[in-house]
Amino acid sequence: MRLILGSKSPRRRELLAGIDIPFKTVLIKADESYPSELQAGEIPIFISQMKARAYTKPLAEDEVLITADTIVWLDGQMLGKPKDDADARRMLRLLSGKTHQVYTAVTFRVSPSSFYKKKDKELHSFVCQSDVTFRQLTDDEISYYVRTYRPLDKAGAYGIQEWIGYIGVTGIQGSYFNVMGFPIQRVYSYLKSIE
Amino acid sequence: MRLILGSKSPRRRELLAGIDIPFKTVLIKADESYPSELQAGEIPIFISQMKARAYTKPLAEDEVLITADTIVWLDGQMLGKPKDDADARRMLRLLSGKTHQVYTAVTFRVSPSSFYKKKDKELHSFVCQSDVTFRQLTDDEISYYVRTYRPLDKAGAYGIQEWIGYIGVTGIQGSYFNVMGFPIQRVYSYLKSIE
Repeated sequence: MRLILGSKSPRRRELLAGIDIPFKTVLIKADESYPSELQAGEIPIFISQMKARAYTKPLAEDEVLITADTIVWLDGQMLGKPKDDADARRMLRLLSGKTHQVYTAVTFRVSPSSFYKKKDKELHSFVCQSDVTFRQLTDDEISYYVRTYRPLDKAGAYGIQEWIGYIGVTGIQGSYFNVMGFPIQRVYSYLKSIE
Repeated sequence: MRLILGSKSPRRRELLAGIDIPFKTVLIKADESYPSELQAGEIPIFISQMKARAYTKPLAEDEVLITADTIVWLDGQMLGKPKDDADARRMLRLLSGKTHQVYTAVTFRVSPSSFYKKKDKELHSFVCQSDVTFRQLTDDEISYYVRTYRPLDKAGAYGIQEWIGYIGVTGIQGSYFNVMGFPIQRVYSYLKSIE
């Protein structure tokens, strides 16, 4: 089985590397807009499938393409990547003192003639939910984090494995790796199941 | 405030570095035996205090020494560091398919004339609990992990941030960082409270 990770996220790369199966990474440019009626976990499923379809090179019979998408969901509203520093501070003020959901969806794509096709489908997706609780953050803490760590590439304007995660997160229910953007245990289980 | 981390664990060092407060590390050799009547979280509290007391250099008024200890607790029994590979495999077979507790205790020690003394005590400790669930692990997975990662320096014979954590842990309740051996959010909060 030859794995292709369709993501340049260093966190996803590091987690996939941790399961000791070789892979290569490719950069996939996909439109990340989605139908407005989608809710919560449906959104990253849709976007991860868009990313999988946006890979235009034909897949070989022994190749499996993996794409993923992560969103932050707070009180029925999606927080994506912040537009700028002010938007990042706004998002962190929303998250402060509350529990929110992180959904990461993973899509596996194989070729129509793949050895690894399951139930005759070229795409297989799942979504994983974790609940993350921030204590009340001060304006100083929020400003310091945004200025120092520039979380503009991160859904919800934070990285759990950065300063703000260390000082502000009081609890997680579910998978920590899911919050990092890649529910690696479920990825491994799925790959074993099609091997 | 000058912090001294009394631990050479790379994981504790990395987590403490993440809160952006400078510190130095020292190696403390302490006896890790404990009274047999101690249970669960009482054990790492006792051992982290032994470590703090085993630091013999006098502390300056602006110094805070931090020590920590982590244990794995399964069905009323403590799992410490494995003696050898066979003992590591035995521990992982015990943990397989079950939920266990990880307790990390942190002790802060200051000098009798410290600026940071709270309630007139030279030692302050807390303990933090997380529940970790492993799916059923196969003998092949256990053997591969022990052979490849040699977890002989780890309580319960596993590192959550290693292969076995990636492929085998289905859920954590509580702090992931606590399972890594250092509940960094609570360390930060305590340091802020005495500053």
